[in-house]
Amino acid sequence: MFFIIGLGLGDCKDITVNGLEIVKKCERVYLEAYTSILTCGTAALEEFYGRKLIVADRELVEQGADAILEGADNTDVAFLVVGDPFGATTHTDLVLRAQEKKIKVEVVHNASILNAVGCCGLQLYSFGETVSIPYWTETWQPDSFFEKIVSNYKNKVHTLCLLDIKVKEPTLESLTKKKKEYMPPRFMSVSEAAEQLLQILQKKVEDDGLVTANSLCVGLARIGSQNQQIVACSLEEMSKVNLGGPLHSLIIAGPVLHPLELEYLEQFRIK
Amino acid sequence: MFFIIGLGLGDCKDITVNGLEIVKKCERVYLEAYTSILTCGTAALEEFYGRKLIVADRELVEQGADAILEGADNTDVAFLVVGDPFGATTHTDLVLRAQEKKIKVEVVHNASILNAVGCCGLQLYSFGETVSIPYWTETWQPDSFFEKIVSNYKNKVHTLCLLDIKVKEPTLESLTKKKKEYMPPRFMSVSEAAEQLLQILQKKVEDDGLVTANSLCVGLARIGSQNQQIVACSLEEMSKVNLGGPLHSLIIAGPVLHPLELEYLEQFRIK
Repeated sequence: MFFIIGLGLGDCKDITVNGLEIVKKCERVYLEAYTSILTCGTAALEEFYGRKLIVADRELVEQGADAILEGADNTDVAFLVVGDPFGATTHTDLVLRAQEKKIKVEVVHNASILNAVGCCGLQLYSFGETVSIPYWTETWQPDSFFEKIVSNYKNKVHTLCLLDIKVKEPTLESLTKKKKEYMPPRFMSVSEAAEQLLQILQKKVEDDGLVTANSLCVGLARIGSQNQQIVACSLEEMSKVNLGGPLHSLIIAGPVLHPLELEYLEQFRIK
Repeated sequence: MFFIIGLGLGDCKDITVNGLEIVKKCERVYLEAYTSILTCGTAALEEFYGRKLIVADRELVEQGADAILEGADNTDVAFLVVGDPFGATTHTDLVLRAQEKKIKVEVVHNASILNAVGCCGLQLYSFGETVSIPYWTETWQPDSFFEKIVSNYKNKVHTLCLLDIKVKEPTLESLTKKKKEYMPPRFMSVSEAAEQLLQILQKKVEDDGLVTANSLCVGLARIGSQNQQIVACSLEEMSKVNLGGPLHSLIIAGPVLHPLELEYLEQFRIK
């Protein structure tokens, strides 16, 4: 059996009881470590599970699926994913490959940022399409996600923006070399994301007056862990906020908030 | 401390390790039992936790918040919620009331249907606003949720429809009486939901050709449990599908599917 197990968002103990039982009995256990991270670190997970983990970076998952699935028709193999297993397309692909090999797959769900953001008080039912904000480079500054934010805003719903993370990314220079060199890990902060959004706003020729520097945003950091932080302020103010270590997410609120949403958000307002 | 703990979707063992530790140490533990249910039942939960639970129906939660929070400033009280704690507005309200009383609140997240639906292969980032489909009565047949489905469709995103559940609902006749009488529990099935949507389509004067009887839908039952079931077919076909026991959810797919979404859905197609 091939198990894909969500680890939730906080630390070791956010795995479900069912998930933990499976981890303990599997022959090999992989930890997916490039679409998200648990800030407690791999060593803490290994100690809590009482077993070794195989850290799976992007190269292994995207090119080494055969190695990961090896023998899973006869024995038990687990693949651990921060949040919920279906947060990233890659894992859907892994399930399909297992099915091609007639390997049975079982999924153990867990919290993901997509539902845990409810902790800021904005109603989960009032979110539109989720967007991802990528790190810009000097030559690549996409802004198509901004249109989706505006489209959600017009539909009177909130937008959750997932912020880029770069873990074990090969440097541009080493891409063509045999021996890859990796950039230091980077995790986009809410202030960096807000800054990119402000730059997009400045470049716009027409001001449609919908999403502006004054729009209400919610910045979230380390949701699900003991030291999570949430702030509510304008996009302009968000570009100066420091919420500490990763992972961060940013919400652009819709134009109309329910009274209960407003009341709940009040505790997170920058005074 | 007042703990709000998500139980996930399947059975007893879907609580997180952290959540279970808290349940074991609390003085009182409430189980919210009207916005959703765990099909394993309360007795199985009590046996697994090794303790008694206080079942909290709508009356207790909405009118007895003071009783639930009683003493939580000095001792530990837990409130268990199927799925994730922030799935229902009521629980946000409970947090606000605790804060008014200067009671500290801690949240333990878990999977909710809002992220677990990813298991059908439709990408979570491509969902628009979630809608709720209520049971119609002879005199009350709202259809405003249909506009949201169409709006999502126009925006090329999928719609997750949460289906009504009626647990311990007082009968209309007993509402004015001192002794309330309750209707038997009801859980809307995907076929009932599809039937209501078809009725809305029939009533429409203009046919905009967007969401129709031929639109691709995904029906999901008991997601997260061992016997979950998923089918993909047209809305028309969905009105005749029997997916067995509760809980059910229905997805109306957007007009354009990613190739990976199509490939994954194929396994759930009604042939």
